Order: sequence, then C-alpha cells, then structure tokens
Amino acid sequence: MENQAESFIGRLSQSSLAYMRRLLFRVLSVGPIPNHLAFILDGNRRYARKWKLGEGMGHRAGFLSLMSLMKYCCELGVKYVTIYAFSIDNFRRKPNEVQGVMDLMLEKIEGLLKEESIVNQYGVRVYFIGNLKLLSDPVRLAAEKAMKATSNNNNCILLICVAYTSTDEILHAAVESCEDKLSEIRSLGRLQNGEISPEKCGAAVSLADVEKHIYMGVAPDPDILVRTSGETRLSNFLLWQTSTCLLYSPKALWPEIGMRHLVWAVLNFQRIHPYMEKARKQL
Amino acid sequence: MENQAESFIGRLSQSSLAYMRRLLFRVLSVGPIPNHLAFILDGNRRYARKWKLGEGMGHRAGFLSLMSLMKYCCELGVKYVTIYAFSIDNFRRKPNEVQGVMDLMLEKIEGLLKEESIVNQYGVRVYFIGNLKLLSDPVRLAAEKAMKATSNNNNCILLICVAYTSTDEILHAAVESCEDKLSEIRSLGRLQNGEISPEKCGAAVSLADVEKHIYMGVAPDPDILVRTSGETRLSNFLLWQTSTCLLYSPKALWPEIGMRHLVWAVLNFQRIHPYMEKARKQL
Repeated sequence: MENQAESFIGRLSQSSLAYMRRLLFRVLSVGPIPNHLAFILDGNRRYARKWKLGEGMGHRAGFLSLMSLMKYCCELGVKYVTIYAFSIDNFRRKPNEVQGVMDLMLEKIEGLLKEESIVNQYGVRVYFIGNLKLLSDPVRLAAEKAMKATSNNNNCILLICVAYTSTDEILHAAVESCEDKLSEIRSLGRLQNGEISPEKCGAAVSLADVEKHIYMGVAPDPDILVRTSGETRLSNFLLWQTSTCLLYSPKALWPEIGMRHLVWAVLNFQRIHPYMEKARKQL
Repeated sequence: MENQAESFIGRLSQSSLAYMRRLLFRVLSVGPIPNHLAFILDGNRRYARKWKLGEGMGHRAGFLSLMSLMKYCCELGVKYVTIYAFSIDNFRRKPNEVQGVMDLMLEKIEGLLKEESIVNQYGVRVYFIGNLKLLSDPVRLAAEKAMKATSNNNNCILLICVAYTSTDEILHAAVESCEDKLSEIRSLGRLQNGEISPEKCGAAVSLADVEKHIYMGVAPDPDILVRTSGETRLSNFLLWQTSTCLLYSPKALWPEIGMRHLVWAVLNFQRIHPYMEKARKQL
C-alpha cells in the first residue's frame, strides 16, 4: 500500500516537473529558438574520477545526460543536435579504453533502435558523421543500420560525430571537390584539347563545391556550440561550421549537464540574435 | 619652469610604470609564456559610437591599442602576434567605410617603417597574411614593401591578416596540395602509363601537404585567441589553427584593451598549460 502511494507520488511529481518544463519552454519560445545545437561531451572521465566510479561509468552517466538533453531539445523545438562522440585522435588512447568506448557505443546504438528509446518516442533521425571506415565492423554496421532504421523520422535530427576530426572532414571535402572538378573538365574535353592542364583546374574549385562534400553538409551550421568542463577549445570539432556560432562553456562536467545549462545557452542566443542576424546578412 | 617640472614628473612616472611592468612580466615569466597570441580586433566602431567620435576614429584608437599591446608582447617574450585586421567579408561593408579603413591601413603600414615605430624599436618582422591580390594596388605594394623591409628582424613576429578568411585560406591550401600531388604523380609517369587516374590522385593528399600551403604556415598554431567585446565567435578567423587553442573573450571593446587583459590571458594559459601539453602529446 505504502509502495503504491510512493509510486503515485513519484509519478505525480514527475508529471508536474514535465508540465513546468513545458511551460518554461513555451515562455522561451516567445523568442527565437536555435535551429542547431552542437555539444563537445567533455568531462566523462573526470566525473568518474570525482565520484570514484569504475572504468567506463563516466561515459555511461554521460549517455544518460545526452538522452535527457536530446529530450529537452526535441520539446523545445531545436531541429538539429550534433555531438562529438569520438575523435580520430581518441583512437590513440589506451587500447582497453578505446575498446571500452567502442563496446559502449555498440550497446547504445543498438539501444537507440528499441521501441522505448527517445529516438523512437520523439521521432529522431540519426546520422553518424565522420570517417566511418575507421570504425570496427560491428560498430560501423550498427551505425549504418541505425541510420537506415531512422531515415523516415523527421521531428528532430541527431548527428553523432564518430571517427571525426574537422581537419579530416575538410581535407576529404576539398580533395573530393578537386577530383569532381577534374572529372567535369575532362568530360567537357577541355583537358584533352590542352585548353586547361590538370594541375590548374583546382583553381576552378569554389567554397560552395567544398561545402557540397562536407560530412556535416546534411545540417545547417550550428547556432550554439557547448563545451562542458569550462574548457574553451574546439579540439578539432566543426571548425568549418562554427565561424558565426555562439560558443558557451559551462563549468559542469558532461554528465552534470542539465536543463538549466540549455536554458542559459538559449537565453544568451536570444540576447545576441538580432546582432548575429545582421552579421550573417552581411556575409 | 613649471612646465619643465611637469614634464620631469611625467617622464618619472612613465619610467616607473615601465619599471613596474617589467617587474610584473619578470614574475609572470616564472611560468610558461605563450609563444603565439592571436587577436580579433572587435569593437572599434562601437567604441566610436560610445564616445561619439567621428567616422574612422574608432579604428585609429584601435591602432594605438594594438601598438601598446605589441610592445607588451615583445617585452613579455611572446614571439608571434597575429591580428585579424580585415576580413574578405568586410569588403561588403559600405564603400566609403571600406575606403576609410584602406586609407588608414596604407597610412599605418607606411608609419610602421618609420625609425621611431614600435616595429623598429623592438625588431618586429611583419607578415601580411591573406589573399593579398584582393587589396588595392597601393595597399598591396605598401604591404609587400613592409614585409621586405622588416625581413631581417627576428625578435618578434607580427602577422596581419588582411583580405583573409579561414575558409578561403583552407580552400586555397587544399587546392594547391591537390595540384602539387598531380604534378608529382605526373612527373613520375604514373598518369601516362594509366597506373593512376588524375581524378583519384587527390586521395594521396595528406593533412601535412595542406599545412605546407596554408598562409599561416609561417607561424606555429596560436596558444591563445583573444576576441574583444565579449563575443565568443571566431568569425572565420584561424579555424584550422585554433583546435587546441585557449579562447578568451574580455568584455572590453578593442580600443579599451590593455595590459590587464594580457596578464589575465597569460595567467589562464598558465593554469591550463600542463593539461594542454598532455592533450597535445596525445595528438
């Protein structure tokens, strides 16, 4: 009887919290809402050390925070959420640590597809962004399966950067643009008739060509980039895309991030929004 | 007599200020000193509006701040200072405003070469970084003259980004790398014998190749990027070079920047230095 009462009170307080949250989001939505939020998930390992948790437990706590945040973003009407899950440079960490993160990633990607997951509850489309060839076969296959399974969702888009660095992304896009231009010029017969030499056709490559080949081309540039742990570095994440982006570095470690940080980021975005719009129009 | 006394007191207080500054810098130098500082000079126009100054006076005040800061950096032992003077996007501002900035730039570049300028007093080598072809002839010629005239200075390096955006720099470097690789492969006869097609040789381009062609290749990556006016955007400046860089956004407008901001930036750099060194070694 007591248990039933407790569970009833628990459900009641949860639903009133959800009601308050929706009300707050409704108020926030009077102002402009960012279209795209990007996150550098920094501080999982420090969180585990701080609370003396076992190996990998920081990353597990971080995943829970990510799911809550994803839920808040969907409710608030943020269309795109990008996270920096694993950098190409992270492959140089200790092998057992890399293996631990990969195992967790495989488990969580498979979890995303379950009926009760936030991805299904909120109609989230998932993209994996990066040099996916660098992933182990099981992780890559699971990632491809998740992208396919969610390809009809269009409420919110989650972009998960794995085996990603921005310099690798830019290099890949620029090289593909040069190759494309070469094919195009060749097909027009301008190489054969000596009108243009292959070494010089790169000059015809434009920024728009590069942007067509950039992995992150499926989303507009982010409006806010959040890096937790109070760090203010970009660590080779979305360098190409963050030139007009608000950077926000709360002190909280990633697993400690919560709704208050999201609200604060959006309020800051709203404060500078008129100025940013003007700056973007000048571009 | 009174005037002489006043001037004596003026000189005395100036020299004791300089003495105090050197003492402070000596204390700071017990810790690591950043090798390269980069600045986005934001807030010149807002400064002019704030103090109701005439058109272009904000930029003139900003130039004075730059010279003081350059002096402090030389005294502190910072080897490289990079400034974002004029973006490619700035060419789209009102024509008379663009012309005003260009006239000021021409005047100040010529001023840099005078005997009494900070460049000569402190042995500063000047580089102009960017797509210099976009500058008007007089400005470009003055820039080239200044680079040549200071090419034997090696106490401190000032890199002035004009007609610069980071995406333009990256595109230029990537395209040149592709063209180089194509020439190299062609000279080895691997194109003619069909071993490799021109469209596929881009795959042989590496990050190191791109870095060889990047305009900013004459300097190591910056340790601290300072953007004044409390803004935390990079505005297409040094995107490629700031992935492990400390970002610092003081509230001061650019002409208000002073020694205290420099000291604070260096103290923050020293605080995170051990962590940054570890992170860089992992790369």
